[in-house]
Parts: sequence; structure tokens; C-alpha cells
Amino acid sequence: MTEPQKDPLVLFMPSGRRARFAKGTPVLEAARQLGVYIESVCGGRGICGRCQIEVEEGHFAKHGISSSPAHLTGVTEAENRYSEKRVLAAGRRLSCQALVDGDLVVDVPQDVQINRQIVRKRAETRHIERDPATRLCYVEVEEPDMEKPLGDADRLLQALSGEWQLENPRIETRLLPDVQRLLREGEWKVTCAVHDDGDGPLVTAIWPGFHNIACGIAVDIGSTTIAAHLSSMLSGRTLASAGAPNPQIRFGEDLMSRVSYVMMNPEGRAAMTKAVREAVGQLIAQLVSGAGVSQEDVIEATFVANPIMHHLFLGIDPTELGGAPFALAVSGAVAFPARDIGLPVNEGARVYVLPCIAGHVGADAAAVTLSEGPHRAEDITLVVDVGTNAEIVLGNKHRLLAASSPTGPAFEGAEISGGQRAAPGAIERVRIDPETLEPRVKVIGGEEWSNEDGFDKVMEDVGVTGICGSGIIEVVGEMYLAGIIDEDGVIDGRLAETSDRIQASGRTFSYLLWRGGEAARSQEIKILQTDIRAIQLAKAALYAGVRLLMDKLELESVEAIKLAGAFGSYIDPKYAMLIGLIPDCRLDKVKGVGNAAGTGARMALLNRGHRREIEEVVRKIEKIETALEPRFQEHFVAAMAFPNKAHAFPHLAEAVKLPARKVLAEAEGGGRRRRGGRRGTR
Amino acid sequence: MTEPQKDPLVLFMPSGRRARFAKGTPVLEAARQLGVYIESVCGGRGICGRCQIEVEEGHFAKHGISSSPAHLTGVTEAENRYSEKRVLAAGRRLSCQALVDGDLVVDVPQDVQINRQIVRKRAETRHIERDPATRLCYVEVEEPDMEKPLGDADRLLQALSGEWQLENPRIETRLLPDVQRLLREGEWKVTCAVHDDGDGPLVTAIWPGFHNIACGIAVDIGSTTIAAHLSSMLSGRTLASAGAPNPQIRFGEDLMSRVSYVMMNPEGRAAMTKAVREAVGQLIAQLVSGAGVSQEDVIEATFVANPIMHHLFLGIDPTELGGAPFALAVSGAVAFPARDIGLPVNEGARVYVLPCIAGHVGADAAAVTLSEGPHRAEDITLVVDVGTNAEIVLGNKHRLLAASSPTGPAFEGAEISGGQRAAPGAIERVRIDPETLEPRVKVIGGEEWSNEDGFDKVMEDVGVTGICGSGIIEVVGEMYLAGIIDEDGVIDGRLAETSDRIQASGRTFSYLLWRGGEAARSQEIKILQTDIRAIQLAKAALYAGVRLLMDKLELESVEAIKLAGAFGSYIDPKYAMLIGLIPDCRLDKVKGVGNAAGTGARMALLNRGHRREIEEVVRKIEKIETALEPRFQEHFVAAMAFPNKAHAFPHLAEAVKLPARKVLAEAEGGGRRRRGGRRGTR
Repeated sequence: MTEPQKDPLVLFMPSGRRARFAKGTPVLEAARQLGVYIESVCGGRGICGRCQIEVEEGHFAKHGISSSPAHLTGVTEAENRYSEKRVLAAGRRLSCQALVDGDLVVDVPQDVQINRQIVRKRAETRHIERDPATRLCYVEVEEPDMEKPLGDADRLLQALSGEWQLENPRIETRLLPDVQRLLREGEWKVTCAVHDDGDGPLVTAIWPGFHNIACGIAVDIGSTTIAAHLSSMLSGRTLASAGAPNPQIRFGEDLMSRVSYVMMNPEGRAAMTKAVREAVGQLIAQLVSGAGVSQEDVIEATFVANPIMHHLFLGIDPTELGGAPFALAVSGAVAFPARDIGLPVNEGARVYVLPCIAGHVGADAAAVTLSEGPHRAEDITLVVDVGTNAEIVLGNKHRLLAASSPTGPAFEGAEISGGQRAAPGAIERVRIDPETLEPRVKVIGGEEWSNEDGFDKVMEDVGVTGICGSGIIEVVGEMYLAGIIDEDGVIDGRLAETSDRIQASGRTFSYLLWRGGEAARSQEIKILQTDIRAIQLAKAALYAGVRLLMDKLELESVEAIKLAGAFGSYIDPKYAMLIGLIPDCRLDKVKGVGNAAGTGARMALLNRGHRREIEEVVRKIEKIETALEPRFQEHFVAAMAFPNKAHAFPHLAEAVKLPARKVLAEAEGGGRRRRGGRRGTR
Repeated sequence: MTEPQKDPLVLFMPSGRRARFAKGTPVLEAARQLGVYIESVCGGRGICGRCQIEVEEGHFAKHGISSSPAHLTGVTEAENRYSEKRVLAAGRRLSCQALVDGDLVVDVPQDVQINRQIVRKRAETRHIERDPATRLCYVEVEEPDMEKPLGDADRLLQALSGEWQLENPRIETRLLPDVQRLLREGEWKVTCAVHDDGDGPLVTAIWPGFHNIACGIAVDIGSTTIAAHLSSMLSGRTLASAGAPNPQIRFGEDLMSRVSYVMMNPEGRAAMTKAVREAVGQLIAQLVSGAGVSQEDVIEATFVANPIMHHLFLGIDPTELGGAPFALAVSGAVAFPARDIGLPVNEGARVYVLPCIAGHVGADAAAVTLSEGPHRAEDITLVVDVGTNAEIVLGNKHRLLAASSPTGPAFEGAEISGGQRAAPGAIERVRIDPETLEPRVKVIGGEEWSNEDGFDKVMEDVGVTGICGSGIIEVVGEMYLAGIIDEDGVIDGRLAETSDRIQASGRTFSYLLWRGGEAARSQEIKILQTDIRAIQLAKAALYAGVRLLMDKLELESVEAIKLAGAFGSYIDPKYAMLIGLIPDCRLDKVKGVGNAAGTGARMALLNRGHRREIEEVVRKIEKIETALEPRFQEHFVAAMAFPNKAHAFPHLAEAVKLPARKVLAEAEGGGRRRRGGRRGTR
């Protein structure tokens, strides 16, 4: 008698899930049993090509597995047929065809390519594991039989239930008039879009025969810009991205003026809802046609927005958000058929709107949180999304707080004399020689600094047209380092004696950053005392909000900072910390994370698990209403100074060679908090 | 130490459910724990008055209970306030206020009256236990709080969840724009319509403050008539009933001509769908205004119809039902928001369409089955709904079969020379003197027979205008008993010699049933040989279908017969059996059950348990397609005779004194089936 052989061990990467399976088990089936998501549209018939895998070769000592592609059964007829017609890269197998025949380390690739001409406008920055709320299911349906007079739709559901292990699948009533035609057109073979977001499987669309494309749209509705991403629901790949101005701007530049418009105009709410939905629709149409897919192929859409945009998009009067207690009509996630708001997508497509955190902390902040995952981290992480309101999330996997601070639009270049939005020609980098007070700058669209060879070319190409948010941060920081402004932000007029860059402007002084000139696009750019004040107010508001959350967690510093949004992605963390925008942190732990709201929207689009995740995080997150906190004002006042007087910056002091008197002030400031406000010079 | 006292015993009638409850338990709570349905809208606040109960006084030896109203705690302030403003009959208590204080026999009355002026157009014939899919839930919602920035809708759901023990309640996205206004209008108190038909609780409507009325509509869409009933969802009472002609008649008199119309006209399906939905809408509007309620108060609707009406109502092309294999687009129950088809009811109202049994056995037959409950019976029960198609269900709780027989419209008076629909002036009863062959008749709208005093008055009032379905059955039966027609249905021309009632009509003879006369409404009514043939074809078709099902169950007779529909309610079972419309059965077990389809629709309206019940019955019921059964034709031919040659009628022979030669023929016929067709005279 021989010892009974153990079943082969199968390990899936990157998830690391593993178990033993009987020889002859399809790899796809093994993955399903382990909860490893491998896409399949055709239900294991070897025709959709979505279920590709690779087997790693070698001995994996750690796992005790000697894996080899030869431990799969041979390439099948179906795989040969598939690779003749479509793309099946070398080494790839269809996991519905390949059967376990020995130990395996299976890699589930994330870039399954089906059609040879795939649109790929921009590289993916983030791998999002897929478990979409709507998926495609191909089925073969029994023909009608007088002896078993189940309806055509009922037999379709029966087939779905049997072939796809769906429990009690239902079908949209809307589809019933089409079922018979589609089944006969497809000769009793159809592909269904089946939506299940925790509410049971529901057929939301049907295509005759085999259909192998399904897309989703993730949209971030900002006050000024709407950004949308078109993704393949099957591969997860982003097919196209686009942005468009929010047409509500014509009703009011900022959020509160739009709320006022609603309050003053009986039809205002409806007009703004219509405007934003139409703009979203046009953006979707543009993305879809650009990517060469059909509107009918778009079967899911996710939306994020700040609370007022969120309400207006959903057709809800935002008036209550205009004043205390800032009551949201709805804070939880909202889901509904896309046709209810007339989006140009498949009539069965489903919309999912991420939850709002609080009256000032919207679904966009929820998406940023989902994307940056402070709730998944051990490090105490500060996530800041800087806009007209800065949305702030602080904490880690054990405890998470959120708040919003009214920074105003200064960081976006508004309310700054020479300010402009981040566009070619805008100054984004500034250095000031502390001896001569002469500046050098770098503009968006140019590689060279203004004192380098080749800047003439930059002037010709884009010119110097203004200063954008990140430039403002730097110029203020450099002015402070150069001693042009003091701790209170006052421009030192005495320096006008030694430098013509310092000029009197009425009773205050200004700093001439760019002289302008004869070139068409060379604007004179001055930093006025009022500009410094605007930045002080904005950074103090943001910092005070952050500080309030740090107080709640009894923190003196944070372990990681993630700056979301366009502004956050371009500012130099050093300067942000120097002017007191963010608290002290190891500089290498401060990161601009780009369009995190968009990434969060895409995560919710491609994986319903991420929807449950953010819903739970939002339920648990502690919301701090800054307006209710007595210490907010105190923090705000203290944070007006450079570097702000509320806090010590040991990491900053390491990284930046502060001028002697500044370092001193900083050191004293750092100690002062504990000793009480001895030097209350303000 | 005394022996610990047992908790009081509470017995609920009529359900008989019982258990012990701690003193101080509200009776409403005790009922809930036992699953006894007592309506409550206000959630136990003593204001809705829906939860009335009575306590029986006396010793119930069988149950070991000495019950007394004094075993409840005293009448509360809330009850006094309620009975000042509304109706609280003597002896009634509000079960949310009255607490258990001793042994009780509690009666849950079915006629809770709330408003003093209640519309009550017709008496209830059937008590339907209530467990509606949509119910009203009054809640008090916390006001918004900046520190707990949950949205208004989310707090509403939280309150519903807490006060009404709803698990994960959701709200229709459609309502979100109204939530804030309604909550503020109701000063944070609202009444919600909460729908849960197995798919989780969903808020479908909201009224500010306390709202204590909710209605439902049950509709039977027949080929010729649409009948609708308006019920209170809270008391179960039918508030009003009405009927209207099906406007699709202008597209085709019978079902097949409507299918043809769809096949011939590209817009035909849409036009017929629009027509029937509009007619239903008008009927609802009429019922609602007649009962003095608001369209907004209608929150549920159920529909039954034959398969073709069912499909056209749902907007589905019925072409496939026009030919084999008679494929239904959908056979299962269909549910959707009423607004999807534009019904004039609350926008959140839900429609439930009962399942169809087969391509020829529709949701109307399912409703008849639900109403008559052969699946609940031990007796082998035959349920027949006679219309243009007769729908037949046979069996008992252990096994149930269904089929449809193409009887044609003869039983409805169509295709009969003097036939008319059941209306005043139509002959409904006939007796023929076997000696003189002189008839006497009774008409709808008259009490007296035509040979009685007072018939002059009947002639003046309604006249004699034709013969309706039940009259046709009787005249044919009487003609057979009088020997005017033989077993093969041939009118015996030789009798013309002795009676002028027998007249030659071409090559055949006719029987002059009514001479007509000078009176304005006194039509001559003859029974032609072709009329007898039409009845023979119709009754043979019905009987052959029944017989086929009896064969499957190996039955020679049935234990109960229920005749549904207007025709079934008025025919005399004796004559129905005599002419061979139905098989042999104890005559006292043959019952006309009236509008059973309407009753079934009302049951599904008022109790979602009945929906699950009929869905399960329809899944299990065995469908027999008569067209596929070789024996159908054989049974059909045999059933043409009087009484039909397919079967013995021992119960009939007991009840009816058949003429000597008939009895002989019958006895021989009864034996013949087993001996083979020896007397194949046809």
C-alpha cells in the first residue's frame, strides 16, 4: 500500500490565497472557491478570454511549492481558437480551460488585453482589484416548451441561476418587452449585465449572443471642473479621461453664491441641476465616442462631489447646507438607475454616489479617503484636499477624524493680485537670493529657471502670465526665508533702501517678483501686502482645522501627509510646512497624491467591496465641526504667523536652513506652546 | 416561600396562537411576538387607533383560561383622547395601551372603524388576513445636529429602523429632494409608506406629521371588462368596486383578433397597451374620487389578467402567445413602481402582477386558484373559470394540475341566436313541461316566472330581451329532459306535429322559447339547431379539458367543484352536470364562487404571504397543454353527447329525475367506457 497522494497545492498571486485542489479542477474554479476575482463573461466556455492567468516557474521555498506551467493540462481546442482570433500573450492560459495537474503558483495579470486595438489614453497609476457591481454573464437559454410553460424571461433567469450560481436573480421589468426578441435574435444565447450591489442579482441589460465589452464612468463634480474617467469594467483599464468646466459657474463662482442663487430664484435649483447633468452627459458622450465604444456599453457610473454639488446633481435643494446646522438631505451612499437622471448610457446602467461625511465634508472627501486609505494604515496619516474648502481627514486604522476648513480660494490663485490658475506661463517655482533679494522663477510649460540659458525660449513659448497656487506658497516661503517678511507677515519696508524689488504701495510695501516687459506675455507681477494676508488667512484656516483634529488625537506631529488635488500635487512639501500650511512631519512622508477623489471614484466603480468599505469608514469617522470648536479661533490666530506659532517643526528645521533669527524664533516658538504665550507680540 | 406565580396566558383569536407574557406587556407587543398581525401606524403611541382589540369574558375550559377585560390595565389617557375624537366602540381597547395583567382571550376584530363617515359600497364576502407589502409607519426623527452630521434622510431611516425594527431600511432616491421639506413641515414627525415584499424595507412615500389612511387597488383585466376594487390597506375593507369595458375591444373582439392586430399593425401593441392602461387609470380615478380618498393615498396595486391581456398591459408583444409553443415572455410574478406605467396613484405605489400559469392559463387563473385554494384542500377540487377560454385547475394540497380549454364565447351568450350578456331582461331560468313542451322562464330583474301573476309587471319593467349564459344551459338541459333533443343534440322534428314550439328552420328544426309580442321589449327567442351545436362544442371542449386532468389523476369523479366568474355563479349545477359541462360530483359540493379572480387579486393586495403562496403554487402546478394531448380529441368527441358519453353521473342520477330512456342511456353510457365504444352511434 502506498501513502495516499496529497492533492496539488495552488497559490494565487498577488493575493497569496492558497489551497489544495483535486487534479482536474479548472483554475478558474479554484480561484472562485478561494474568493480570488478572475473575470469571466462566457461562463467557462473559453470564448471571452477574460480569465487569463500565468503560471510561475520555479521552486517557491517559502510556500513549499514547485510550480511549473507543465502542471496544467494541455492547451485546449478552445484556447487555440481564441488565440487565433484575439490576443493571448505567450505564457498566458485561459483559466477556465487549464486544469490543475500539479502544484501551481498562479499569477492573475491585471492587463488582460482582448482586442488588438485598445484605446489607452493614459497610463494607470493605481491597480484597483476588480469586483464590479455589474458584470457580464453569457448564458445559453432553453427554448420554450409547451410542456414546461415557464416564460422566456423566467427561463433566462433559471439559466443565469444555474450557470452563474446567482441566487434568486431578477430582471428589470423594463426589459420584459425585449426579452423574446433578444433571445430569438441571439438564437437562445444572450449576454446579460447582472447588477448586484448587495441587493441581489438583477439583470439590467441584455445583448443577443456573446457580448464582450462593458464600461464604467467615474466622475468627480467639482465646483469649477467636472472630471470623468471611462474604464473597462472587464479589465479595469482606464480607456479615457476628460474634464470640462462646471457650467453652474454662470450661476455663481463659489459654492455659497450658488446656494444664494437657489434661495433667490424659484427655478434656480432646477436650472443648476439641469446644467450639471447636461455637462456630465456631454462629458460622457465625448469620452465614449473618443474611446470608440458605445453608450450602450456603459453599465456603471460612480460620482463624487462636495456636498453642495452632490445635492444639486441629485436634484436636492442645497439651502440647508448654507447655514447651521448644515443639514445634509442625505449623507449615506445613493444608488439609482442612470436613466432616472437622463445620462447618455445604457438604460440599465446604475449610478452609485459615494457617501458624504458631513455638511462640509463631501463625497469627494470620502473618495479621497478611500483612495488614500488612512483607515487602512498604521501610520497616523493626515489627508488634505485643498480647494475653496480644505477637507481634512486625520488618523489611522484605529481612529479617524474629519473636518473642513474655510480656506477660501487663495491657494487656487484667486484673491491674489497676480494670481492665476495653474496653466502654461504661471510661475510655479520661486527662489529669492537672501543677499540681493533678486528672484528666479520657473513657469509651467518651461524647463529652465529664469536665470538659465534657454529661458528666452520659454518666454517665447509660454511667457510669464501670473502666479499659481504652488508658486504663491513658494514666494511667500522664500520671502520669509530672505527676511522680506517677518513672522507676522509684514513686508519690511526698510529693505526698499537696498533693493528696488521692495516698493511702497500706499501705506504698505510690495515685492516685485517679475518686472514684466515688452514681450507680449510678460506681465509685471507684484506680491502685495494684501496677497500675503490672503495666504496667511488661508493657511491659518487650514492649519487650525488640522490642529483641531490633532488636539482630539493628542498629537504633536503626524506620521504621513497626503496632499490631494492639483494644488496638493504641485506644492513643495518643504514650503508648505515652512509657511505653516501643514504640521510637522518627516518630509519624505509628505506626498502629493494627485487626483485622489477621481481614484476613489474609480475604486468604487470597479469594486463594490470598496463601496462597502467607504460606507463603513464614513459611518465610523468622527466628524468635527470646526465652527463649533472654541479652540478653532485660537488655533487660527496662532497659525497666522510664519512659521506659525501654534506648533513646533523639528522635521522642517532639519530640512530647511532657516535664517538665524528665524531658527531662533522657531525654537522659541516651539518651546513657547508649553510655557504659555510669553511672547504675545501680536 | 410561595410557589413562583406563572405569567399570564394570552390567547389570540381567531388565530388560536397563545403564550405566556410577563405582566405589563402591551397586548400589541404580545401579538407581534406571536406573529399575530395587528395593524399599527403610530408605532404604539395610542393615536392611530388601528390596533383595536376586544377581550372575551368567561372561562374557556378547553384552553384553561379565565379571561376578563379586567385582566388588562386600566384605560389610558391616550385611549380617552382617542375615543373623544374618533370611534372606539364599547369594549374595544387599543392594544398598544392595554397591558397584560392576567389571563386573556383576545379577539382581533376585522372591522376596525376609524373615521365616522366610512365609505362602504359593498359588503365583504371574504375575510382576508392582512400582511400588506406596504404599510404606514409613523416616526419621530431627531433634529439635525452639527456634531452628528448624519443626513436628514439617514436619520429618518435610523428612526424607522429603531422604532419599527426594520432591518437596513432604504429610501427611494426620488424622495430625497423632498425629505428636508417634509421633515420640517411635520416638525420632525412624518408617516412613511414602507414597502417590503421580500426585497427589504424601502420608504416609498412620506407624509408630514401623522397620516392614517392608505389604500390599495386590485384589478382584474378581462378581455371584455376591467374590474377594480379599492381597499383600505389598514382595515382590509373594500371601499368601492367598479367595472369598465376593456377599450381594446375596438382592436378586436376576442383575444386572437387582438394578437392579429398586433401582428398586422406596427403600432398596434403600443396602442393597445396605452388603451388598457388609460382605462385602468380612469377606473382608479373614479374609484378614488367615489370613495372620497386621494390618489396619493393609493400605495399598492395588484393586477390579474389572462396571458394576452397580461402581456399587453405590461407593454409586451403577445405575438408569441398566438401560436405554438405559446411562449410567455414572462410567467413569474412581476413587480414595479406604478409610476413606470403612469397610473394615477401615489408616485411611490408599487404594482404586483400575479404570475401566469401557462401560455393559456393566466394570472387570472392564478388568482382564482389563490382565492379558491384547491392547494389548501384535502378534497380533490375542480376549479373552473369559464370565459372564452375555460381555465381549469384540478387537484388538492398534494398535487395540482392546470389546463385551458378553448370553449369559445357560447357560454357568454355570443354565437347563440338569441344570446345576450347577463343583463336585465335576459332569460336566466327555463323549465319545459315534458308533456306539453310549453316553457316557462324567468328573467334577470324579475322575481316571477312567466306563468305566475306579476309577470306583467316584469315585462313592463325589463321585458324579455334575449337569453344569457345560464339560461342557455338550462334551456338545453330542459330540452334534453323533455325529449326535444336526443343524446346527439338533434332536435326531434317529429314533435312539430304535436307542438307549435317545434318549428322547421330549413333542413333542421328549432324550439320557440319565447313568442315575442307587441310589447316593446318582447323579442321572439328561438333555440336553433346551430345554437345547440355551439353549446355542444363549448361544453365538450370544457369537459374534455377537465377529463384530461382527471385522467392524469386517475379520477372518475371529483369531490368539489368551484365555478368562478359571473357565468359560473349563476348556472344551476344540476343543469351544468346534466348537459355535461362538469363531471360528476355531489351536487351540494358544486358552488358558484363569484368573482374569484378579483378575490385573489385582493388577497395578493392585502397580504404578501398570499403572493408567496401563489408564486409557489404556480411553480409546482403541473401544466397540461391540451393541444399536445392525443386523448383531448377523443374526450372532446365523446363529450358532445347529452349527457356526455365519456363519463358516468351517479350523483346526477340521484338528483335529477331523468326520463326513462335517458336514465337507461345514461346507465349504459356509464358502463360503456370500460367496455369500449360498442354503441358508436355517432
